[in-house]
Amino acid sequence: MRKLQIGVIGSTADLKYTKKLEKTAVRIGKLIAKSGNILMYGAEKDYDSLPTIAARAAKKADGLTIGITYGKGKEVYDEQSADVIVCSGLERGGGREFVLVNSCDVVIAISGGSGTLNEIAIAYQLGIPVICLKGFGGWGEKLAGIFLDKRKRLKCLSAATPKEAVKLAINAVQKNYKK
Amino acid sequence: MRKLQIGVIGSTADLKYTKKLEKTAVRIGKLIAKSGNILMYGAEKDYDSLPTIAARAAKKADGLTIGITYGKGKEVYDEQSADVIVCSGLERGGGREFVLVNSCDVVIAISGGSGTLNEIAIAYQLGIPVICLKGFGGWGEKLAGIFLDKRKRLKCLSAATPKEAVKLAINAVQKNYKK
Amino acid sequence: MRKLQIGVIGSTADLKYTKKLEKTAVRIGKLIAKSGNILMYGAEKDYDSLPTIAARAAKKADGLTIGITYGKGKEVYDEQSADVIVCSGLERGGGREFVLVNSCDVVIAISGGSGTLNEIAIAYQLGIPVICLKGFGGWGEKLAGIFLDKRKRLKCLSAATPKEAVKLAINAVQKNYKK
Amino acid sequence: MRKLQIGVIGSTADLKYTKKLEKTAVRIGKLIAKSGNILMYGAEKDYDSLPTIAARAAKKADGLTIGITYGKGKEVYDEQSADVIVCSGLERGGGREFVLVNSCDVVIAISGGSGTLNEIAIAYQLGIPVICLKGFGGWGEKLAGIFLDKRKRLKCLSAATPKEAVKLAINAVQKNYKK
Repeated sequence: MRKLQIGVIGSTADLKYTKKLEKTAVRIGKLIAKSGNILMYGAEKDYDSLPTIAARAAKKADGLTIGITYGKGKEVYDEQSADVIVCSGLERGGGREFVLVNSCDVVIAISGGSGTLNEIAIAYQLGIPVICLKGFGGWGEKLAGIFLDKRKRLKCLSAATPKEAVKLAINAVQKNYKK
Repeated sequence: MRKLQIGVIGSTADLKYTKKLEKTAVRIGKLIAKSGNILMYGAEKDYDSLPTIAARAAKKADGLTIGITYGKGKEVYDEQSADVIVCSGLERGGGREFVLVNSCDVVIAISGGSGTLNEIAIAYQLGIPVICLKGFGGWGEKLAGIFLDKRKRLKCLSAATPKEAVKLAINAVQKNYKK
Repeated sequence: MRKLQIGVIGSTADLKYTKKLEKTAVRIGKLIAKSGNILMYGAEKDYDSLPTIAARAAKKADGLTIGITYGKGKEVYDEQSADVIVCSGLERGGGREFVLVNSCDVVIAISGGSGTLNEIAIAYQLGIPVICLKGFGGWGEKLAGIFLDKRKRLKCLSAATPKEAVKLAINAVQKNYKK
Repeated sequence: MRKLQIGVIGSTADLKYTKKLEKTAVRIGKLIAKSGNILMYGAEKDYDSLPTIAARAAKKADGLTIGITYGKGKEVYDEQSADVIVCSGLERGGGREFVLVNSCDVVIAISGGSGTLNEIAIAYQLGIPVICLKGFGGWGEKLAGIFLDKRKRLKCLSAATPKEAVKLAINAVQKNYKK
């Protein structure tokens, strides 16, 4: 079977996340790498972020990571986090986010502000499963366990731990594509 | 002063909106046209929608309307709702929505499901004011009066009537660009 | 019948076009406006261009003009050339060009460098007719009367004057959509 | 140093390329893999293509390959050619091509019709070096050794063999980014 493309989405550093959140991101990155799957994330040019932390952890664990960035610049490339940088040519704030989510088989949300909300809404619209980590605040927590609208497409799944999140992510893809 | 580009976002017909919601959309379209500004909306190829209803009403009142659509086809063109169709070349579910919101000076949200949620999140990220109609359910109602995250950029403004919504929209742009 | 969306593409000011070329652009803009159709062009934030000159002429003649721009900024808006600015959210150099051409029923090419070449190639791939002005150099001249590849989709049509260009453009759309 | 992202562009199967061209594509794919760099290509959903042939050869030689595709579908994934599929969400015919080229450090063109012409024009506009194979017809041959316009940005470099093409590509990036 092919490797899954698992997106990690969540807060950027300007949202001031805790050490505990950072550790959670590290754990998720490591688990994705160990599962033999691919980690996809939004590569930022200015801020660190939980997704970038997860990507660095995945790289450290010999995983394959793909950063999707905005605009043109391949200068965002950082060999500690990314194997490949794809430059969407689209602005951040909706455009880059769309190319990222559209390229994922499933996404895992860790906390997160408006960008994460945007990405969860995209995933829902595209029928891509979303795994939300509970207990970490942000949109990732608020949307855990609910449908985003009356169409009741795919419920945002709720995970209590990084381990459960990665496991649910892998299962959700397999179930989603069996349909 | 140049004409403002006012986006109307909200439910598509598969979300089964009420007659009252349809009338609200008609009213908003008419008011935008009468204000001398431009109505921007997402042109759908399959469903009718509150934004399309607003566009038809604006056209009837001699307003200028611009439909932003997904993919290639200019076949979506319908002279009862659109003066111009812009084909974003992007998929619906996040891509087309981004080009639409990115092209607006302000957006007015009427009820709405995941697509509207997506568009509100984009507006917030881009610093584009959002006017939410209260009393009509959907994400437009849920987000009225709140900030989407701790960054506290622009609060989603709350309007009780179409008239107030259009007035707030025009004021918000003037205030936003004075900053 | 609906109004046609006629794109004008061609050199930007850094390619140093002649007064004669400027007059040709003015003439084309005026003729599109007088035909009652819509002029679409790429709105630049730094340079003047033959398409922008055409748009200003169209506006002067009471035509409707739509500028498609790159990135975010509606600050490109200039009431002398544009009625509406659509912000594609895509970078210039291929992205914005794609949204522009994809939104046209037909394009008229006046001289032009690599950006115009790009736009002609897009039009060919999308099956959108291209009218090339002869006698003005650039890619618009080099490609007049030829097919871009062995697929022989639509030959770039050759026009000797602005009048012929606009006439051919209108006829080409009618013929193209009859097929 | 980071791995380079080398794009391979060129004819799709409907342009009916020769066995000799297929062998050239195989050779280029293998050489990119052996150089330790990453092969980027446009993943098609309907046709085989010289870039896909190169990607298959790179995979066989244990290289890393990234397919950029149009629209939504990850169903284009084929484990014989791609390690990762990025879904640009943009239409083919200019949009997907833009995300592909924008993500490359350099591109190698093998023959090619209007799509390849489009991609070479994008590369030129973005300042990304283009290596053209001589002796194989198509736009790759026609543009070898020339500038695309009077701006004289980067001349399309001409290579006589796959070996020379890959060597020139690697050198061009190093030279380009030293500037």
